Amino acid sequence: MSAAAAPVDFYFEFSSPYGYIATELAEDLERRLGRALRWRPILLGPIFKVTGQAPLTNIPLKGDYARRDFARTARMHRVAYRHPDRFPIGTVAACRAFYALDERDPQAARRLARSLYRAYFVENRDIGDAAGMLAVAKEAGLDAAALGAAIEDPRLKERVKGEVDAAIAAGVFGSPFFVADGEPFWGVDRIPMLEEWVRRGGW
Amino acid sequence: MSAAAAPVDFYFEFSSPYGYIATELAEDLERRLGRALRWRPILLGPIFKVTGQAPLTNIPLKGDYARRDFARTARMHRVAYRHPDRFPIGTVAACRAFYALDERDPQAARRLARSLYRAYFVENRDIGDAAGMLAVAKEAGLDAAALGAAIEDPRLKERVKGEVDAAIAAGVFGSPFFVADGEPFWGVDRIPMLEEWVRRGGW
Repeated sequence: MSAAAAPVDFYFEFSSPYGYIATELAEDLERRLGRALRWRPILLGPIFKVTGQAPLTNIPLKGDYARRDFARTARMHRVAYRHPDRFPIGTVAACRAFYALDERDPQAARRLARSLYRAYFVENRDIGDAAGMLAVAKEAGLDAAALGAAIEDPRLKERVKGEVDAAIAAGVFGSPFFVADGEPFWGVDRIPMLEEWVRRGGW
Repeated sequence: MSAAAAPVDFYFEFSSPYGYIATELAEDLERRLGRALRWRPILLGPIFKVTGQAPLTNIPLKGDYARRDFARTARMHRVAYRHPDRFPIGTVAACRAFYALDERDPQAARRLARSLYRAYFVENRDIGDAAGMLAVAKEAGLDAAALGAAIEDPRLKERVKGEVDAAIAAGVFGSPFFVADGEPFWGVDRIPMLEEWVRRGGW
């Protein structure tokens, strides 16, 4: 990866099927881009309050399409997928835990994110409550006790709020959402466009 | 094109930038698919009443992204684009005129559709009212007087209503929207997936 080029911001929500698929594709994507991805989990709940939007599966017609598309998009990318029984879920605990790790060890934060996503979208486990989230963290070899304390830490609560505000300021309204040199790309299906944009420096 | 394979339904709304771009790509797409596209203009207004959605540009954050994305998607595909001053517009007259032609001469209907789209999305002309729409039809060498009568014909009014109802029954919620052998694909950015699906017969 080029040390000179700025990282590409990679926003995702832990309850988002397309966000999950994007994290599974992220390492290959970094290699193809020649740029690091900066993983930034966000909460779509407060963002939907700004946009007036709703979770995909709650929207007539679009919801049916989305449920079919989650699974076929995962199959196309050879990513395991099982639509969770409880969907969507609140992911504020997962977000706080991610940033608690990310401040000192970004690779551990990525490991947590991948483990949480697979627990939710492959194993149908509930990562929406703190106990379920921490159980997954522990199995991933992370310090669940420290994370349990971190998610109650007012500083991390503020950190997550700040990340959501920053995402809104950057124009983020969905998951996954990439911003490369100020240029926004929404959705797994826009990854090819992101790659071409970075390669050509825009058009 | 294979005579045996069923056509792929191609739904679009005349006020949709992505629908316009899709029509510009449609002939090459037919060749690559080896399947005919069945052009079916629809009205997103009544469909949005079912889904509770709104025109893209009216949605906070998503609207800013959409305006930027209309232009860059057009440039990527080397399609001329100028965002119209009046947007979105009602397109019921355009729809009725399309189906009036389509019943006897599908190629003439396609010519009208392409002319209307270019008038609106390149020349910034208003095709939302009957007079503006008919002026474009006349310049395209079509019988404007006959089309002017057709758009007042109760049978064609019912035809358009029927097409919108059929689109809703097929799960259509946006533009462009393709349905190949019952499988739905929404958006210009899903054309590669549609192609791969048809080539592989699904996955």
